[in-house]
Amino acid sequence: MQVEVVSVSDGGEGTSDALREALGGRERRCMVSGPLGDPTEAGYVISGDGSTAVMEMAKASGLTLLEKERRNPLKTSSYGTGQMILDAVRNGCRHIIIGIGGSATVDGGTGMLAALGVKFIDGKGKELKPSGGMLESIAGIDLSGLSPELKGVDIRVICDVDNPLCGERGSARVFGPQKGADREMVERLESGMTNYAAVLCNTLGRDVSTDPGSGAAGGLGAALKGVLGASLEKGIDVVLSLIDFDRKIKDASLIITGEGSMDSQTLHGKTPWGIMKRGEAEGIPVVAVAGVVRDSELLESAGFSAIFPIVPGPCLLSDAMDKDTARHNLIRTSRQIARLFMINTNLFRKED
Amino acid sequence: MQVEVVSVSDGGEGTSDALREALGGRERRCMVSGPLGDPTEAGYVISGDGSTAVMEMAKASGLTLLEKERRNPLKTSSYGTGQMILDAVRNGCRHIIIGIGGSATVDGGTGMLAALGVKFIDGKGKELKPSGGMLESIAGIDLSGLSPELKGVDIRVICDVDNPLCGERGSARVFGPQKGADREMVERLESGMTNYAAVLCNTLGRDVSTDPGSGAAGGLGAALKGVLGASLEKGIDVVLSLIDFDRKIKDASLIITGEGSMDSQTLHGKTPWGIMKRGEAEGIPVVAVAGVVRDSELLESAGFSAIFPIVPGPCLLSDAMDKDTARHNLIRTSRQIARLFMINTNLFRKED
Repeated sequence: MQVEVVSVSDGGEGTSDALREALGGRERRCMVSGPLGDPTEAGYVISGDGSTAVMEMAKASGLTLLEKERRNPLKTSSYGTGQMILDAVRNGCRHIIIGIGGSATVDGGTGMLAALGVKFIDGKGKELKPSGGMLESIAGIDLSGLSPELKGVDIRVICDVDNPLCGERGSARVFGPQKGADREMVERLESGMTNYAAVLCNTLGRDVSTDPGSGAAGGLGAALKGVLGASLEKGIDVVLSLIDFDRKIKDASLIITGEGSMDSQTLHGKTPWGIMKRGEAEGIPVVAVAGVVRDSELLESAGFSAIFPIVPGPCLLSDAMDKDTARHNLIRTSRQIARLFMINTNLFRKED
Repeated sequence: MQVEVVSVSDGGEGTSDALREALGGRERRCMVSGPLGDPTEAGYVISGDGSTAVMEMAKASGLTLLEKERRNPLKTSSYGTGQMILDAVRNGCRHIIIGIGGSATVDGGTGMLAALGVKFIDGKGKELKPSGGMLESIAGIDLSGLSPELKGVDIRVICDVDNPLCGERGSARVFGPQKGADREMVERLESGMTNYAAVLCNTLGRDVSTDPGSGAAGGLGAALKGVLGASLEKGIDVVLSLIDFDRKIKDASLIITGEGSMDSQTLHGKTPWGIMKRGEAEGIPVVAVAGVVRDSELLESAGFSAIFPIVPGPCLLSDAMDKDTARHNLIRTSRQIARLFMINTNLFRKED
């Protein structure tokens, strides 16, 4: 029996660090404007062959860059994220992978677009400085200045929410409060976002504001997809494609995956779900292991061949989470799965 | 997929009741002498076809028949057990299955033998009345009066200890104290048992006193095996043969068995061990499930194809033992095992 171990993540925080090794990459640091304009040093990863940049928007425009009392989505901007993208392009990257969680902004991605040369004009033809608060003033969008350096660059966005740009499930109402907006600010942002959506639709000739994920990262999703033609993808899918997962499993008879807790949430794009989908596409059975298993029948219906918890019996959560114990339980369970799976591979067992 | 459920026990207390249904049997009650001679009503099971009696010696000569203060292995006797055997034979049974746990006696089975017509003589040629205390006086054993009704009757003994008749691991020293013997009594019983072993060896022309299990039930094992030609067997083996287990598994692809706790103790003749051995003999893989799994690698080495705990994650022992919860966990785990096992049975999965 031959076993290959593949490290995987679902695109959450730390993904670029995790991928650096897989890609044989190096870190690149650049100076950008932070969410409120402060000079900020942002880091991202450039792959070994120099073709791909893997970045997280939070490093340039993230909520954690601001102390709690300075958080104000009427004022914050995603400008730094645009600078970081431009830095990668100017360093020769033709593929941008960007995770957009943890944003401090509700600016509809206008800041990012401005850094890349897009101009936003008010009713009097005056250029606006992007922020959440200026969205209500936008009367026109001038795409003519969009940097030609972006031509032929493909952008893949790791996006794990499916919220639209506006409305009850939109970026202002759902994510505004956690970024520092009070009730009044949320309503101003929502109103501004509705205006922005209409102007954007007019400019592009199509409406991206209702697309799933357009409301991600304070509307950055809409700008990336609508203006820059980026694809919004599940983190796990992007990671699996970056590490060439399909090639790795080509000759596999069985895939074993897992996470700390497996339940209905797993099916919303978490790591084992993504692995299972790849296995399913190749006709390879996928078995899951977990510290805690819930909703087993639901997971089976979704496509997992089998799901096994790893604790050997009643125990405390804290004991189960002990690193050595978890490792031991994981090995024991995986071995049982392999043993059971192997039984029928020796077809002539009885006749031997 | 076709599933057959088979109820199994390993011969412990209550086995005859459990087997009554499997055998389509009925209960028979008879009056016997209890451990101290008190009239005692003992019950056993006669199989539906009338050929087989399944009994427990504890019903006729058991420790629980005596209040604590009356327990005295110098005085107790297995006479009632012999009467119960004779009752079964006189009722037409040609096969006797007898479980010998829970005995109140350390009489070397002399009481049982006496009830079946054997005579024990002292140095002066005087007949002795069997008990633990008379063992030291035995000078001769007269088998000529052994009931001819026993001819052709086979006796299978459910015996789950492998202690010899005498010595450090013998019936007096190991089991005497729990039957009410103090240190002095233990030494008298041991001395008597040594004398009895010598006379028995002389009478039979061979020494059964060192055979594994000869010390079971206060030496009843030696009498059953040496004088009556009984076989001493593991409970699980007897039960499996009674329920015709080998025939039931003949066409099985997989056997799933289990118990509350699986560990190294399981290999000392417990239910899953017996099932595994039968599966092994037929070339059928046996997978075990348990509330708690320990010593997994040892169990794998012994022959289990795989072992899976059934709890879905960290939990309290009391919760895991809740009947509905346990049932639910058992069903979920068995389903996972079947699903994983079935994967390779569809060989043309990819080509389909």
